[in-house]
Amino acid sequence: MRRALALAASPGVPLHPNPRVGCVLLAPDGTVVGEGYHRGAGSPHAEVEALAAAGDRALGATAVVTLEPCNHTGRTGPCVQALIAAGIRRVVVAQRDPNPIAGGGLEALAEAGIQVDAGMLVDDAVALNRSWTFAHVHGRPFVTWKFASTLDGRSAAADGSSRWVSSAPARRDAHLLRGLCDTMLVGTNTVEVDDPQLTVRDDDDQPLPVQPLRAVMGERDLPEDRRILDDQAPTVHLRTRDPAQALATLYHDHERHHVFLEGGPTLAAAFLKAGLVDEVVAYVAPALLGDGRTAVGQLGIQSIDQALRFDLVDTTVIGKGPEANVRLVLTPRKES
Amino acid sequence: MRRALALAASPGVPLHPNPRVGCVLLAPDGTVVGEGYHRGAGSPHAEVEALAAAGDRALGATAVVTLEPCNHTGRTGPCVQALIAAGIRRVVVAQRDPNPIAGGGLEALAEAGIQVDAGMLVDDAVALNRSWTFAHVHGRPFVTWKFASTLDGRSAAADGSSRWVSSAPARRDAHLLRGLCDTMLVGTNTVEVDDPQLTVRDDDDQPLPVQPLRAVMGERDLPEDRRILDDQAPTVHLRTRDPAQALATLYHDHERHHVFLEGGPTLAAAFLKAGLVDEVVAYVAPALLGDGRTAVGQLGIQSIDQALRFDLVDTTVIGKGPEANVRLVLTPRKES
Repeated sequence: MRRALALAASPGVPLHPNPRVGCVLLAPDGTVVGEGYHRGAGSPHAEVEALAAAGDRALGATAVVTLEPCNHTGRTGPCVQALIAAGIRRVVVAQRDPNPIAGGGLEALAEAGIQVDAGMLVDDAVALNRSWTFAHVHGRPFVTWKFASTLDGRSAAADGSSRWVSSAPARRDAHLLRGLCDTMLVGTNTVEVDDPQLTVRDDDDQPLPVQPLRAVMGERDLPEDRRILDDQAPTVHLRTRDPAQALATLYHDHERHHVFLEGGPTLAAAFLKAGLVDEVVAYVAPALLGDGRTAVGQLGIQSIDQALRFDLVDTTVIGKGPEANVRLVLTPRKES
Repeated sequence: MRRALALAASPGVPLHPNPRVGCVLLAPDGTVVGEGYHRGAGSPHAEVEALAAAGDRALGATAVVTLEPCNHTGRTGPCVQALIAAGIRRVVVAQRDPNPIAGGGLEALAEAGIQVDAGMLVDDAVALNRSWTFAHVHGRPFVTWKFASTLDGRSAAADGSSRWVSSAPARRDAHLLRGLCDTMLVGTNTVEVDDPQLTVRDDDDQPLPVQPLRAVMGERDLPEDRRILDDQAPTVHLRTRDPAQALATLYHDHERHHVFLEGGPTLAAAFLKAGLVDEVVAYVAPALLGDGRTAVGQLGIQSIDQALRFDLVDTTVIGKGPEANVRLVLTPRKES
């Protein structure tokens, strides 16, 4: 299974929209007779690759797969049928498929007389496809809220100027994190006021070849000259103020699993109040403004006992010398 | 000189109000004939201790001292006269005395025909008495502004409640830092609203035997029932709104060298605007309030270019698990 997990994590495999999957076929004597991994949407599934590599040697073999084989016909045929047809005798999987339309693979294999086992190194398999798993379990994308602020919690000065609150290395770091998500989400107000392009750019400020979806949320029309409407990446306008509805649309209609929330204080507050922030990434600059736009708007909190509490997952200094900013990663505290 | 520095830093020597000083006497052949260090106000100076230990062997010896010997009569007689009287041939010091009323020692020694040298390991000597040196160079105490806030820069909730923004380990850490200063400073408003006791307490919440001075700044009278007026530590009321004047009084009238500024947003803003914050210690809790009292008030800053920028000196996570807070230490950025 460790080999299958390593195959799944092969370099160059896109994180979205499909899960990363690896498969190893073992002959009864333990010899590896085939290996494969999924290279992204439209490519063969890991099991199909491994079966092709094994050929006749798949007969009587054990298939070790990081994810439960699919039992539905998507862009490729169901792997369950391929495994049965190849004469596989046993299937060992790490993670069961959380996607309701793809699940039921193990049951179908067992009905065909194949011995099935699940759960081996399941935590590693889930970590491999964290947001994909989360999205299918919860029926909505995982939401990372990112913001940059001064030490006194300001994201812009009194006159609205905000370039730049954080240092160049911190902004580059945020671009790296953007690239790990499949969607960037802002509100119509941010598009009107800040006019961000919302692309993922490299150190030379050039857009990367594969761009996350740009999503704008809100009922107002977007001015046509906004940079978010350029041809550098796809853009979708979600005409709702309801965070849950916006996320449902991104999941069901756009196959999105990880939203990078980069909006202003009002949008951030709406998601926080709805309990729809799963991770916070904050870049804190060693600066003070004393006034100006706050990173988060009103949360309806009156007393300190009602504060939204998080667990501190990571604290890292990004950049050096005068460019040093502090990046904090937090997750919502579970009720104790 | 390293030995003299180590003697100066002996455990148990108070940090205030006197500097820590160490002295080693060397015979012409390099043998140590006497050692001494200053144990705090009212005790003999380091040189006097070392001369007493050496007795007749001080004749023709070299005195290695971390600080320029004093040339004035304070609580003890001038060390310069003692060194001359003992027949010392050469004096090597690290730091020259920044205190105008105590300086001139090297000149007086040279006039008496003693060979003098200064500057050896001077940085280590200055670090030994950082706030003492700062105060005498600048004619005012070194100011450390400490605050605790949520990640969105709030020090209290909308209803004013603030117990507790930061975790118990972070509050204990702040108590340790309080104990390294000789003065804690708040405004009259904090005394009226929060009624802090402003004592340094140990892990069992018991006050330590030696307490810093409690200073309250502002023109209003203090309600008599306030905890800051109890008998646990001395308290002084500085009837001014001018930070520079308050600091001058603390330095000249109260021999204070290190102020721990713990006031509210208005007092903090007054010191920041006056350029009188030399160090910031911020405890950031992984929590959001969205509203409530900010850590710092208006600074008169309009645009991002005018932001007060600091250098990040230290970033440390204080406490573990749900008690983890981030402590940031910053110093004002020098104009480049």
